[in-house]
Amino acid sequence: MRIAYGLALGQGRVTLEALEGLRERLLEAQQWLEEEGARGEVGFMDLPLQDPSPVLQVAREVRNLYDHFVLIGIGGSSLGAQTLFDALRGPSYNRHSHPTFHILDNVDPVKVEKTMSEVKIEATCFCVVSKSGSTAESMANFLVALGLLQRAVGREEARKRIVFITDPHRGTLRELAREEGYRSLDIPSNVGGRFSVLSPVGLFPAAVLGIDVKRLLEGASRALEACKRQDSVTHNPAWLIAGLHYLYQTLEHRGISVMMAYHERLSTFVDWYRQLWAESLGKDGKGQTPVKAIGAVDQHSQIQLYNEGPRDKVITFLQVENFALDHEIPHLYPHKPALAYLGRHRLGELLKRELIGTASALAKRGVPSITITLPKIDEACMGALFMVYEMATALSGYLYGINPFDQPGVEEGKQLTYGLMGREGYQDKGYEAQKIWEKSIKASLIV
Amino acid sequence: MRIAYGLALGQGRVTLEALEGLRERLLEAQQWLEEEGARGEVGFMDLPLQDPSPVLQVAREVRNLYDHFVLIGIGGSSLGAQTLFDALRGPSYNRHSHPTFHILDNVDPVKVEKTMSEVKIEATCFCVVSKSGSTAESMANFLVALGLLQRAVGREEARKRIVFITDPHRGTLRELAREEGYRSLDIPSNVGGRFSVLSPVGLFPAAVLGIDVKRLLEGASRALEACKRQDSVTHNPAWLIAGLHYLYQTLEHRGISVMMAYHERLSTFVDWYRQLWAESLGKDGKGQTPVKAIGAVDQHSQIQLYNEGPRDKVITFLQVENFALDHEIPHLYPHKPALAYLGRHRLGELLKRELIGTASALAKRGVPSITITLPKIDEACMGALFMVYEMATALSGYLYGINPFDQPGVEEGKQLTYGLMGREGYQDKGYEAQKIWEKSIKASLIV
Repeated sequence: MRIAYGLALGQGRVTLEALEGLRERLLEAQQWLEEEGARGEVGFMDLPLQDPSPVLQVAREVRNLYDHFVLIGIGGSSLGAQTLFDALRGPSYNRHSHPTFHILDNVDPVKVEKTMSEVKIEATCFCVVSKSGSTAESMANFLVALGLLQRAVGREEARKRIVFITDPHRGTLRELAREEGYRSLDIPSNVGGRFSVLSPVGLFPAAVLGIDVKRLLEGASRALEACKRQDSVTHNPAWLIAGLHYLYQTLEHRGISVMMAYHERLSTFVDWYRQLWAESLGKDGKGQTPVKAIGAVDQHSQIQLYNEGPRDKVITFLQVENFALDHEIPHLYPHKPALAYLGRHRLGELLKRELIGTASALAKRGVPSITITLPKIDEACMGALFMVYEMATALSGYLYGINPFDQPGVEEGKQLTYGLMGREGYQDKGYEAQKIWEKSIKASLIV
Repeated sequence: MRIAYGLALGQGRVTLEALEGLRERLLEAQQWLEEEGARGEVGFMDLPLQDPSPVLQVAREVRNLYDHFVLIGIGGSSLGAQTLFDALRGPSYNRHSHPTFHILDNVDPVKVEKTMSEVKIEATCFCVVSKSGSTAESMANFLVALGLLQRAVGREEARKRIVFITDPHRGTLRELAREEGYRSLDIPSNVGGRFSVLSPVGLFPAAVLGIDVKRLLEGASRALEACKRQDSVTHNPAWLIAGLHYLYQTLEHRGISVMMAYHERLSTFVDWYRQLWAESLGKDGKGQTPVKAIGAVDQHSQIQLYNEGPRDKVITFLQVENFALDHEIPHLYPHKPALAYLGRHRLGELLKRELIGTASALAKRGVPSITITLPKIDEACMGALFMVYEMATALSGYLYGINPFDQPGVEEGKQLTYGLMGREGYQDKGYEAQKIWEKSIKASLIV
């Protein structure tokens, strides 16, 4: 498998020489990361070599026993599985296959109702993913699902229809698994949510969907090798991505990283990337804001801004060399110039040329871009893509001098919400949130 | 109907006094906009008073005659309809209702194939929306659809199954309508794509879906009145939105406008906003980058960055007072602190308190936000919301000293793509794009 990438450098300070000049820093970053891995502090690089049999075994049972599979998780606990589903299965899967696949990643009651109405509760396996075992949204949806199951099949049978994926030692879900015998799979303690797609968090739902998890891990494994190359910055995809973004951020103050996918099946990969990049690198006043875009759609929405707005962006285009199928555009109006030129081309060809046209127009204006081309969308390519971006993100943390593996900035909002929900021990936080909220200026418009 | 809004001002220079200090500029902007309207240059403010009968009549026929309805359009030609469908109908609509509703807003062959496989071609009405009548993606999909129809039902019958929505006087679709008798509806010449949701561009698909377009226009009409109030900046929703964003941009260099919807049904409204804000205001080196977020999901993805990253954002929260339905969280584990506090609350309550918790945590760190609360999601509220944001965007253009109604920055990419596709007269553009593309640095990773 060959992943190709192209750079349309802008006209600024970020030259190929500047990039190669980062080699020593990247080498240091790589050594730091490998040491963290060797000390057991950072676990995502070990995942390609894990033994997936426990995951495969539980998945086999689920495939045999249930008509529906509902994943309850949010953020890093659901985005990996959603990315794999959308890339490798897609929206028509549920019409032809079983168990049907659903994700509850929010407590929006309308969404929860919709999901619950699409499944027969008694024939559904619910998988609850939370490393801490205390994520409010996932715990709420777990309780709703458990309540429905208990009403439908009784307490004993309800418990059998639930699988936890959680920390091997700690947290409420782990306690419940021990005390009440819920089935469970482990998230390694040294793997955080946003780096967990290649752990059971992503592998188990993938296996339930019949996705070849061994090929996924193989792709990741080979990409990891490539991310250890030290001969040139442009030969190491993680160095290239980390290095370029770092230079554009520090030398040209490009604080926005747009990822624009020219294939709808990669749409959710961009959401996965958004979380990885934002939560890992957005701290200490630093961090680029990741922005999602879809080609060609957002040419008609965002490209005006990218071309003529502030010079604050670096773009990553994602494309796929081979579409699984294609349509020829019929040559029906040869005398109409706005239609004639399209005739006898294929849709996939138009889409690819739109990317080149857009990237070239941006380059003419000095807006830099990287283009990553996957040969096709399959297990190995997705595994490789995940690993390349995880490595690039971890190395970027070192370049910026921040810890890419924590997320201290989400704690405050959680505690204020606990307080507002009346959780014991958080009363003061509840008062505080209420005070801030009441101090805010209120107005209303009657229409 | 009452739309409420709250401001959690940050700790910076943007005070309520600074906002009221903009009153004169906003008044000027308002006068400029009204003059443009009176001169016939800007038409979106006239849309609430249009007669929707032509739209309703064609929609009635479509509802009677066809099992499926496919909208072909991209950007401003599809986002309004998609927003209305997602807000007022939603994903389960197609399982119970007819005609089923589909949007082809991209030339991704996998998406096109999926849509075409979901409909019976001979029982499908295709609606092609393009003001210019030359948008490459929509013309390509039009040709594909026409080819399929001609094969299924012959040339004569194929033409009857197509409705154009286009400029009343110009462009290829208008020519075809005149020459070959295709049915058509008009986009007023003085209404651009991103301001067109309340023209037939949005109203016709809405009417096909059985959405009450008169109530939509009534909501817009009442919002327009509110946007003319001059007593206080905070009493005029368009002034408030335009004024606050302008001050945060110019006084505090907040170049990113996040819109975070705490209701999945408003998810596509955020995409609609993204286009409106980016394409209207992103020019002359100016313009905020709009960013889409969904609550509570993105609390577990983007909030770390918003809280602890660069101070470059202003947030707009969107919420809904009343959910169409709700779920109580059962009180199943009273002895587990991470579960007990959730019991007996409703999911919608949790979601709302998460918004307050998140907004309060952001306010504590000096990240400013506006919260817009709709009483519920219905036709009148959606009409009002569209109009408020269109007014705010138009006024913002005046504040920044730019024309909010053009999009010169998308032309170059279009021409380069024409060249690459071999369109007559664009050969040089094709060579140019190829040269830029070939000059870009290429590498590949073999995994």
